[in-house]
Amino acid sequence: MRGIWLEGGSPIFRNDLPDPPAKDGETRVRVDYAGVCATDLALAAGYMNFAGIPGHEFVGRAMEGPYEGQLVVGEINAGCGVCYDCTGPGAGRHCSQRDVLGIMGRPGAFAEVLRLPQRNLLLVGEGLDPRHAVFVEPLAAAFAILEQVPDLRGRRCLVVGDGRLGLLIAKVLHASGARVDLAGHHPERTPEGIGERAGLLDNDTPPSSITERYPIAVEATGNPAVLQRLFSWVHPRGTLILKTTSAQPALLDLTPVVVDEINLVGSRCGRFEPALRALQSGAIEVESMIHGTFPLREAPAAFQSAATSGVLKILIQCQDHELSS
Amino acid sequence: MRGIWLEGGSPIFRNDLPDPPAKDGETRVRVDYAGVCATDLALAAGYMNFAGIPGHEFVGRAMEGPYEGQLVVGEINAGCGVCYDCTGPGAGRHCSQRDVLGIMGRPGAFAEVLRLPQRNLLLVGEGLDPRHAVFVEPLAAAFAILEQVPDLRGRRCLVVGDGRLGLLIAKVLHASGARVDLAGHHPERTPEGIGERAGLLDNDTPPSSITERYPIAVEATGNPAVLQRLFSWVHPRGTLILKTTSAQPALLDLTPVVVDEINLVGSRCGRFEPALRALQSGAIEVESMIHGTFPLREAPAAFQSAATSGVLKILIQCQDHELSS
Repeated sequence: MRGIWLEGGSPIFRNDLPDPPAKDGETRVRVDYAGVCATDLALAAGYMNFAGIPGHEFVGRAMEGPYEGQLVVGEINAGCGVCYDCTGPGAGRHCSQRDVLGIMGRPGAFAEVLRLPQRNLLLVGEGLDPRHAVFVEPLAAAFAILEQVPDLRGRRCLVVGDGRLGLLIAKVLHASGARVDLAGHHPERTPEGIGERAGLLDNDTPPSSITERYPIAVEATGNPAVLQRLFSWVHPRGTLILKTTSAQPALLDLTPVVVDEINLVGSRCGRFEPALRALQSGAIEVESMIHGTFPLREAPAAFQSAATSGVLKILIQCQDHELSS
Repeated sequence: MRGIWLEGGSPIFRNDLPDPPAKDGETRVRVDYAGVCATDLALAAGYMNFAGIPGHEFVGRAMEGPYEGQLVVGEINAGCGVCYDCTGPGAGRHCSQRDVLGIMGRPGAFAEVLRLPQRNLLLVGEGLDPRHAVFVEPLAAAFAILEQVPDLRGRRCLVVGDGRLGLLIAKVLHASGARVDLAGHHPERTPEGIGERAGLLDNDTPPSSITERYPIAVEATGNPAVLQRLFSWVHPRGTLILKTTSAQPALLDLTPVVVDEINLVGSRCGRFEPALRALQSGAIEVESMIHGTFPLREAPAAFQSAATSGVLKILIQCQDHELSS
């Protein structure tokens, strides 16, 4: 089959990739669209010494099983299915035996066909633009915050970073009733209803008064220097959500975390179901974030575009109708 | 009056220090005993560019006010008394206007007399050995964990570090019903009822199976390399309490915190009242931790002893009866 291969450096279009085998409990999915994410760019830059087919944000049609022929999305962590983590509310997201679509041990979505356990799949329904359904995965990562800090209604939140993930997080917190400020380099991106404190990222001075500090903040830049400064913007005993990793260890002074008794909450991915509902209902708008669509064969250009400053979501169209057999 | 002066380098005994003035709302306390803590050693090493009288663990007799003549201990953070932090359950521990006894902006306990707001004082009562009452402050720091992670009964906890603070934390968690393991270099110190995994600190290998990871862990070494390894010993979605600061920024990789969605909880000091009750009732034993008592004039020797490997608590006797006027 056709797909994108990554093994250090630029992604390569290949038409000789093995078709995914049919496997017990798993369902093959013919991929319509897949989204390029910062993790894909990090894998291309050498993160996790990745070698394989990347891609983990997708929408496609089930090729077999109970959803055969229907539009589906799928949770990307495939756990053992029997351990505490798999049978609990985490649904395998922390299973020690898990593989992860397009990231760890399982071929990804930048290909004509992928496979996932049937239990990972969710029906999209026909009302939702399939291109928007691609956002379920990153949107679920934003919704994870609501599981970890359940009561946000009316509370002041600062989201730092107005890239792909930061914008989705700001939208989700706003939709859940929080009073959201967004800090970043792109004030023109500020979604409706969200405050903006542009330039905060460039400012070494913490707010002069404790009353300006935030009870809740979200780090979505992946920049350790920003994280260090953010410690001073969170209220003592406040909560700081860590949504991004940095590729290298960085010099950090955790003294303010101890002295101000800040709660640092690591946050990765979340359940798909609330994210899918929010897309279906229109509560979260994503059309404005799609900045380009490329065919599989133009993978290097797609990755390059996704890495360009100012570009939000790049989609890859995984069925090549002219060439398709 | 006589006291210890610190201004970079070794502490100096002085007999020309100004007597604390009487002040509205404040009470002077004639100090009987004061304890040397890691923070005092850090101040001597240059932390916070400290210049003044150190000391913040003490017991003494109130010289005026409602507790006049009675044995008291005192919370060390003196806030403005009117802000949100001061009037809430934090009792000024996070007031942005606060000073801190012997640490920041307020002369400390290594002297014949100190002063604190009257509202900071607690009556010790006559049943408790005054030398044991000195432990109220560090013990309150251990009890703070119970406020931050309320439901520990029956849960597996790992305390890393078996120094002064680590031992008190292990005792408090054990007394609260947790199943506590203690990691450190001094297995001979293991208190009764507490498991020991000696050598864990020296071991780079994380536990082989996720089932051995801990739902709750406490970092009490101040060693960033230990903290980095500890990320792998905490269960995904587990809680890691940070009790210590390191003097310098350190290279840290927070990726495991995000990927495993670990909750890092900064924890500094706690309310004195439950700690005092635990000492009064005998629930927490501290006599075995007192490894020496020095008079004020032998301050350099006292600090040196407190900094010696294997030495737990050093007390300073603050009234010199032979020389006292």
